[in-house]
Amino acid sequence: MASLRDLYSDEKTKGLDTNFGVDYVINYKIPSEDRASAEASFVQLIEALTHVGLTTEVRRGDKSSVLVFIKIADKFLADQVYRSRLQDWLQGARTNTADKDLSQALRDEPVSDAERLRLVYLLMVKPKNEGGAGITPESGKWKHVASIFPLHNHSFNRQWIKRVSTKGQTDENDLDEIRDKFGESVAFYFAFMQTYFKFLTVPAAVGFGAWMFLGQFSWLYALVSCLWSVIFFEFWKQREVDLAVQWGVRGVSNIQHPRPQFEFERQAEDPITGEPVKFYSPIKRLQTQLLQIPFAAACIVVLGTLIVTCNSLEIFINEVYNGPFQSYLAFLPTVILVVMTPTFSTVLTKFATRLTEMENYETIDAHHAALVQKEFVLNFLTSYMALFFTTFVYLPFGDHLTPYLDFWRTTAQKITPKDVNFQTQEFSINPERISKQMFYFTVTAQVVNFATEVIVPYVKRQVFQEVREVQSKMSKEDSAAKIKDQPEEAAFLERVRNEAELETYDVTGDYREMVIQFGYLSLFSVAWPLTACCFLVNNWVEMRSDAVKIAISSRRPIPWRADSIGPWLNALGFLSWLGSITSASIVFLCRSAGKGDGPRGTPGKQAWGLLLSILLSEHFYFGAQFVVRLVMKKLDSPGLQREKKERFMMKKRLLEENLGQGVSDQAATPGIEKTEMITMQALEDEARRISTQGHGGDEEAFWLRQRGMAETIQIGRNLISQSITGNTTKA
Amino acid sequence: MASLRDLYSDEKTKGLDTNFGVDYVINYKIPSEDRASAEASFVQLIEALTHVGLTTEVRRGDKSSVLVFIKIADKFLADQVYRSRLQDWLQGARTNTADKDLSQALRDEPVSDAERLRLVYLLMVKPKNEGGAGITPESGKWKHVASIFPLHNHSFNRQWIKRVSTKGQTDENDLDEIRDKFGESVAFYFAFMQTYFKFLTVPAAVGFGAWMFLGQFSWLYALVSCLWSVIFFEFWKQREVDLAVQWGVRGVSNIQHPRPQFEFERQAEDPITGEPVKFYSPIKRLQTQLLQIPFAAACIVVLGTLIVTCNSLEIFINEVYNGPFQSYLAFLPTVILVVMTPTFSTVLTKFATRLTEMENYETIDAHHAALVQKEFVLNFLTSYMALFFTTFVYLPFGDHLTPYLDFWRTTAQKITPKDVNFQTQEFSINPERISKQMFYFTVTAQVVNFATEVIVPYVKRQVFQEVREVQSKMSKEDSAAKIKDQPEEAAFLERVRNEAELETYDVTGDYREMVIQFGYLSLFSVAWPLTACCFLVNNWVEMRSDAVKIAISSRRPIPWRADSIGPWLNALGFLSWLGSITSASIVFLCRSAGKGDGPRGTPGKQAWGLLLSILLSEHFYFGAQFVVRLVMKKLDSPGLQREKKERFMMKKRLLEENLGQGVSDQAATPGIEKTEMITMQALEDEARRISTQGHGGDEEAFWLRQRGMAETIQIGRNLISQSITGNTTKA
Repeated sequence: MASLRDLYSDEKTKGLDTNFGVDYVINYKIPSEDRASAEASFVQLIEALTHVGLTTEVRRGDKSSVLVFIKIADKFLADQVYRSRLQDWLQGARTNTADKDLSQALRDEPVSDAERLRLVYLLMVKPKNEGGAGITPESGKWKHVASIFPLHNHSFNRQWIKRVSTKGQTDENDLDEIRDKFGESVAFYFAFMQTYFKFLTVPAAVGFGAWMFLGQFSWLYALVSCLWSVIFFEFWKQREVDLAVQWGVRGVSNIQHPRPQFEFERQAEDPITGEPVKFYSPIKRLQTQLLQIPFAAACIVVLGTLIVTCNSLEIFINEVYNGPFQSYLAFLPTVILVVMTPTFSTVLTKFATRLTEMENYETIDAHHAALVQKEFVLNFLTSYMALFFTTFVYLPFGDHLTPYLDFWRTTAQKITPKDVNFQTQEFSINPERISKQMFYFTVTAQVVNFATEVIVPYVKRQVFQEVREVQSKMSKEDSAAKIKDQPEEAAFLERVRNEAELETYDVTGDYREMVIQFGYLSLFSVAWPLTACCFLVNNWVEMRSDAVKIAISSRRPIPWRADSIGPWLNALGFLSWLGSITSASIVFLCRSAGKGDGPRGTPGKQAWGLLLSILLSEHFYFGAQFVVRLVMKKLDSPGLQREKKERFMMKKRLLEENLGQGVSDQAATPGIEKTEMITMQALEDEARRISTQGHGGDEEAFWLRQRGMAETIQIGRNLISQSITGNTTKA
Repeated sequence: MASLRDLYSDEKTKGLDTNFGVDYVINYKIPSEDRASAEASFVQLIEALTHVGLTTEVRRGDKSSVLVFIKIADKFLADQVYRSRLQDWLQGARTNTADKDLSQALRDEPVSDAERLRLVYLLMVKPKNEGGAGITPESGKWKHVASIFPLHNHSFNRQWIKRVSTKGQTDENDLDEIRDKFGESVAFYFAFMQTYFKFLTVPAAVGFGAWMFLGQFSWLYALVSCLWSVIFFEFWKQREVDLAVQWGVRGVSNIQHPRPQFEFERQAEDPITGEPVKFYSPIKRLQTQLLQIPFAAACIVVLGTLIVTCNSLEIFINEVYNGPFQSYLAFLPTVILVVMTPTFSTVLTKFATRLTEMENYETIDAHHAALVQKEFVLNFLTSYMALFFTTFVYLPFGDHLTPYLDFWRTTAQKITPKDVNFQTQEFSINPERISKQMFYFTVTAQVVNFATEVIVPYVKRQVFQEVREVQSKMSKEDSAAKIKDQPEEAAFLERVRNEAELETYDVTGDYREMVIQFGYLSLFSVAWPLTACCFLVNNWVEMRSDAVKIAISSRRPIPWRADSIGPWLNALGFLSWLGSITSASIVFLCRSAGKGDGPRGTPGKQAWGLLLSILLSEHFYFGAQFVVRLVMKKLDSPGLQREKKERFMMKKRLLEENLGQGVSDQAATPGIEKTEMITMQALEDEARRISTQGHGGDEEAFWLRQRGMAETIQIGRNLISQSITGNTTKA
């Protein structure tokens, strides 16, 4: 990482100090053909931007693009902020309505970088009928708009990287700063990482203890791990709400941004706001969604075949085959897997994307959630299927695998020259296999992952940059006609050109990594209790490398809002539940395999024990969940409490404004004095009404028989004494 | 029921036509001793009532009581209504704040009988510091206040009974009327009954079909029944919300009435409203709550022993014993059960009540929910334990029961005279046993229940009334000093004296009956598919007899509000879940018992099959729940939608009131024209600011290099053409 910090070394900081007040940069690609259309489209772009109130400047980009710089006027921004906050309040995402006085409102709640950038971005991409410029990058008439991105605040980034490299943990202030700069969507990821990291210490400690004293496949570790995952999940759900309230974004997931690609059948009226909304039949969508079933089946078949084939081949080579080149051949299945899995995954992901588009969602969030769900299925299969195969096929039915292994034996014999001495040894089930696999996934795979995620892009970027510099020098020599940058801007523009080349940061990928990691822990860590320790180390690095990735290796992300980690929450819950089943199965199968009486015991007994383990473990999970939720509910989350209080105070304030101080106080605690006054008067009025109108008849007579309290008391006392006299007379 | 309708026959309607405007009647008991204290307390009572604004009249009651009649002045009521509605709004239970103009507010939303009676009752029982009279019937200084009850509106009751006797179903209007007269708490019960009745037709039809074509223990019926219970439960949850919104009571469960008996440790500040609240350590309460575990264990042991003993005795007598008096002895276990169960139940219920009091809840609702929970455990045990014994002990382990049956044999032999010919036959498991039991519980028990619930109280009441009339005639002859009723009031007073003698109506008992019934259906109906048909008939009668019970056999209930069926909802969910397990077990155990290969098959195989059945069935339940919830969520409930709309309109209205029409429109749809205007102006301002202040330096220069849209476009076009020239030059 030291080499990464070099990025901020002195000789490179030129052009990083200032953003020249630029909010956004549009990278406008100039195609080598169709120049007229590109020019016309460019004119439209500048006009559209200017019409929604943005100032523009244009500069040379790389050799086939121009850069459009965009800025919003402060005064106009204030107007946008005010409108957006009012809208939030109307939609229920804010408890307080913004102050009537605009400048006062901005003083009370200053506009953060993230809010500013989000509003400017929305102004550019919102459809025209909603007051935006309607720019949709890379599609339709804006196909030359390659990207729209904000500029990094490098002075903040530098401090941030310095802080995360020196400090042990991300704290609340760090999160608030991340939120101010990159938006709640990214901040939620770091908050999740922080919570997850802290929670990981528990299974790491327990796992280390289990590894030292209990060995593998300990049911005690399985129970603790299950309980931990339940507590972690429920705690995070509450933390999420607290953070959302703290950041004032609770409920923003209800404010949906329409998806420009959405195709509607007809217009309908929104049942709540009465505004016209676009309508697409949910039945039609359901029909498309049903295609997910054959899609999932196809994924299982394709990836399953690959994984089963490679696994059985590996088993054959490692545990049966004993011939020549055994040590080299052992790598063959891994090589096949490493090459083929990404290939198949890419193809299937394309299918998933296509399917999600066909499902035609109204909103960006719904589209994104549906895509994430499908990708999660793919990731689930590629990540865990080998381990599932070992747990539920190799361990219980290993003996029955022999005929299938014979297939490989025959194949091996066929392709081996006859004169080579070919040996096989007897096959026996080895429960250690699953532990070895876990070691591979937790250590090897994470290291490889780190390399592909951080080091490769870094190297790639450096190389490309060099190449580009050389090219641009060459082209400069080529075309003298090229406009030179103004000297005071040159460093800045060079830096922007570099940022334009960077990749887009997508927080989804980082979430995926963490959720899949949580899955290994929850599903299979009982086979190798040190899993959590490895993840702890990995995540310590991960948190830092993610910061570097956002700050240096990617363009600055659009600071979207979010009030939760979205679709990943369900994935976590699912993995946590599934963990209760797999852990129990692994413990039962591997312990009995270890004792040597399980897989070779009566099949009935084994099935009985396995089912009972699963049943008990799953109900332990549900029981724990029930209790933890009950406790969490009692512990009234500070966020929810704060929100309630805000709502209450807001209403009280409104009441006071509308009705005057008095009424609101009265409503809060009805005073007795007041009551009595009203009473006397009301009674008199009532009496007068009855006596003047006199329509009461019997009713009137009934209520006037005793006039006032004193008479009632007197007559009551008489009745009481008479009754007692009567009683005593009788007795 | 014809005889019940006689109650409203002509000769008895005297005194039923009018309530003389009476809101409440207090039945004030005069003790035979301690006359002075009773008198003093009476004076305090009248004073307290008058001080909170209530008019009182006193009349003779029965021979040892006086009746205090209470009425609230219309004007003062309006004030109370307004305050209560404001409070509701502050607490979030109303979306609309009441109109500023009091009379307008009452015209917009008239005060129903239920609202009036609830407010008057609260005025009497609320503590003094909250503006009430602080009357707590039957406790403390108000120990002579035997009861406080509103008077029946007999003209409504008469119509209602007539309607329910002639009409097939309760419809929405009926529910609204019940709500207006008896409050939401009772109306929710009838709404639940209505929904449950309609839903019952499905399992009744399916059950009848299963009984005709599939026989008992059909897995198909079990699946349908499980699915049905899931759909019913989820549907009711939504219907509850819809009704609550329709009745304007959603969220009232958050407005809690403090429990007068609550003992607090110290005062604290409410985190939301800032008002002082009483505080009792939840840790202490938890410690007390932990006593529920030994309590539940005790219940299981006591009731379990009773039920197991009687069941095994019954098995012995019916299936083994073949000696003399067999047909008479067969009744012995039932008699023991019928006598002992209520005895034990009563004792345990007392324990439960005591335990709940020790748990010292702050609010009436929390106390009630805790009590209901404990009673549910008791009811669960008394209702289902015999069937559980049959399912999980008799059927799978019947063979092992032989030694225990031998105990009865030995006992029987001991107590039989030696000369009597004593015969036993071989014991064999009979799967029909569970069906017989179900028949008993669904038919016999329901008939008995109807008798004890409706006929016995009616007869009792008639007898007591006769006795009282005779007594009062005698006492009249005795004490000539007794005050005679005024002739125009006599019939009314006589009727009120009768109503004072009636029992309190508690909706909890009716809920309990329905929930326990739902339990039979969900847990065991697979053993006798006609269960639902019987319940359908039973509930048709039940709905009518409940109406009669409320209207005639009970005092009019205090019209409490409610926004759901409260703790029973959890009980329903629990039974629905448990049903998935028991149904699967019954199907597996009884089918294999029927084939004769199960209980006598290998134990391993049987356990394996049973566990697999349970596992599959339970996951079918969870899967169905997941899907049904997903679908329900998509089908946006009309109630929630209406609520959202109301909230949105309210906010919009507030916005308009506070900020004027313009802003709210702007906020809803930012207009483009406006935007453009602002834009041009803002841009000019910005430019002026920069040029006047001139502090921008490089930044200023950067943004002023192209002045206005036209220049940007011009320079951009140049760049584009140059770039293309460059490209072509290169190419």
